[in-house]
Amino acid sequence: MTGAAATWVDVPEGSGFGPANLPYGVFAPSGGEPRVGVAIGGRVLDLAAALGDPVFAAPALNPFLAQGPARWREVRARVAELLGDERHRAWAEPHLHPLDGVALRLPFEVADYVDFYASEHHAANLGALFRPGQPPLTPNWKHLPIGYHGRAGTVVPSGTPVVRPCGQYRPDPDAPPVYGPTRRLDIEAEVGFVVGAPSKPGEPVPLSAFAEHVFGVCLVNDWSARDVQAWEYVPLGPFLGKSFATSVSPWVVPLAALAAARTAPPPREPAPPPYLRDGGEPWGLDLALEVRLNGHLVSRPPYAAMYWTPAQMLAHLTANGAALRTGDLFASGTVSGPGREQRGSLAELSWGGAEPLRLPGGAERTFLHDGDEVSITATAPGTDGSRIGFGEVTGRVLPARPPEG
Amino acid sequence: MTGAAATWVDVPEGSGFGPANLPYGVFAPSGGEPRVGVAIGGRVLDLAAALGDPVFAAPALNPFLAQGPARWREVRARVAELLGDERHRAWAEPHLHPLDGVALRLPFEVADYVDFYASEHHAANLGALFRPGQPPLTPNWKHLPIGYHGRAGTVVPSGTPVVRPCGQYRPDPDAPPVYGPTRRLDIEAEVGFVVGAPSKPGEPVPLSAFAEHVFGVCLVNDWSARDVQAWEYVPLGPFLGKSFATSVSPWVVPLAALAAARTAPPPREPAPPPYLRDGGEPWGLDLALEVRLNGHLVSRPPYAAMYWTPAQMLAHLTANGAALRTGDLFASGTVSGPGREQRGSLAELSWGGAEPLRLPGGAERTFLHDGDEVSITATAPGTDGSRIGFGEVTGRVLPARPPEG
Repeated sequence: MTGAAATWVDVPEGSGFGPANLPYGVFAPSGGEPRVGVAIGGRVLDLAAALGDPVFAAPALNPFLAQGPARWREVRARVAELLGDERHRAWAEPHLHPLDGVALRLPFEVADYVDFYASEHHAANLGALFRPGQPPLTPNWKHLPIGYHGRAGTVVPSGTPVVRPCGQYRPDPDAPPVYGPTRRLDIEAEVGFVVGAPSKPGEPVPLSAFAEHVFGVCLVNDWSARDVQAWEYVPLGPFLGKSFATSVSPWVVPLAALAAARTAPPPREPAPPPYLRDGGEPWGLDLALEVRLNGHLVSRPPYAAMYWTPAQMLAHLTANGAALRTGDLFASGTVSGPGREQRGSLAELSWGGAEPLRLPGGAERTFLHDGDEVSITATAPGTDGSRIGFGEVTGRVLPARPPEG
Repeated sequence: MTGAAATWVDVPEGSGFGPANLPYGVFAPSGGEPRVGVAIGGRVLDLAAALGDPVFAAPALNPFLAQGPARWREVRARVAELLGDERHRAWAEPHLHPLDGVALRLPFEVADYVDFYASEHHAANLGALFRPGQPPLTPNWKHLPIGYHGRAGTVVPSGTPVVRPCGQYRPDPDAPPVYGPTRRLDIEAEVGFVVGAPSKPGEPVPLSAFAEHVFGVCLVNDWSARDVQAWEYVPLGPFLGKSFATSVSPWVVPLAALAAARTAPPPREPAPPPYLRDGGEPWGLDLALEVRLNGHLVSRPPYAAMYWTPAQMLAHLTANGAALRTGDLFASGTVSGPGREQRGSLAELSWGGAEPLRLPGGAERTFLHDGDEVSITATAPGTDGSRIGFGEVTGRVLPARPPEG
């Protein structure tokens, strides 16, 4: 496609929700039931009403996602035509709701949630902080995309407040552990991939089938209690340090909108095993993330720097025959680039708390304070030369609730 | 209660499904839709028909579980009366189906699946095998019940064949890893706890509220590919070494049936932190497990030897405010006792493959061969002096499917 994609809808300059994007979400109009919509400019199109299809009169994208890639293409083409051709305006315009008058919900019901660890810069930084004196990358890191399962039931929509969790940790390595509110509440700026079409048990999904199963992309903030995580994670991995809340953005950008964002990943050395070897059209993605703390830009993590692509993550996740379900979410792990101002977590930005981050106005942060608000946004090149936006994932920290008794 | 509980149903000697048990499952009569039933002797009572309540005309226990503990008590009392009082026989008997004429399904839809590591004997054995030269228990082990999230979407009902998974592992520590069928396919004999009533986000579930949230108990076989697990698990824990299949028994024994099985757990030293300190009525459980390989009894793991109780696991799981959902499953981790013949995994029984297990007839096993069948059963003291049975969780190993391309 060349030139700006067309629409009769008024799309403000820099909206990110132009006609080359068309992300999906779930919204509830004032006093109405939640349903599936597509964002355009400052509005959302009620798909059940506009297309007359009850699959969209659902409180989650899942029924539509389960219909598979041919159907995803068909609906995207119909929506593009409805919003692109002036002749459909009389029909479609009554089904457009202003975004500032609707409530946005969790866009899909999460089946299993997997979190990867795909940034070499992040893994090396965390390794240096968590395992000082040892090599920053574990011996397996460049042979497979390391991942683990997270808690699907605590994935929450953007805007949900995050209560500072309590947990067990050991501030003094020579004293017994303590239980109390985390002192090292952190964020992880991540990109999430939403599985639409399931796979069969026992049948790995090859790299080439990525777009047949993954519907689209959202933003993820994997809130982390670093002191809890550091004490608990050996030998079975992160658990309560992560499971209190994981926030996702309200919009899922379809893979189809990201054709111009595909890019070559960094060189991989040593070459990964055959089932992870991407040939001609790898799924590196040129997404530019921004992290804001109380409104101040504190980091610009570049997704293009990720070592492992989402197609490799999916191929690995299913390499043992594990089946995919509609609504599975897998996230990239913290997106960190090589530069200091490109790190996607406070643990990295403040180097484990040793080098506080200075905010405009004289404030400093190592980890999050009660009342802090974190917002992650991203943009990517669109197929029509515009910038595609991912909306934002945001959350404010509430004080810990003291344990009863 | 004293003396055998009464029933007009013919319960064969040693059935395990006497009137003091009344476990719940999901069954499909020949040509019929799956629905909820209660096992008694060699039969299953169709609850939707017998009680005239559509909550049981569902392919999973979840809608009933969500109704909460007062309702669970009420239904158990009604079923006990229906099956106990001869006057109800004419009404109820037509709703009893012979177990050998029905298909048993996954009893509940799994929300999140968490696997603990609560046996000191197992953790010490695995530590010695996976981390030779280091202390067998990690420093955190006696301070908290270590756990991690598993893959809910690959929890399968007993009887589902298990295809030998492929994966990445490194047989030679000085050579690159290889990808292929696991050479170390193992089992883990575990006990699972099924959450019925949800909890609110941000509100930890104290030890005293265990029975208000947990509905019942099932058996779990957490199939494991030890070579894959050993290569992948540092630093984020087990992933593909476990996520290909986790089998559960078809029957969920209500906590209410286990009153006589409650027992004191082993002494805990050092004392756990206050939120994990169980006082007068701890939830140790005297379940006697048996593991059979191709019909031969190979182990008798004693659940009463577990260091952490399921109430402690639940209190820890929610200590950071993580919410529970109906259908959450948490498992104990491998049940291993102090004795060699009480170990719940082949890795332990064969000491990492170094000491093959000798089976009657001259066969030997370190890890599982294609065609092997593993079955785990358990019994517990019932409130009427009988032995309560948990049925069995069984599965046969099928050969690996070679990867395509």
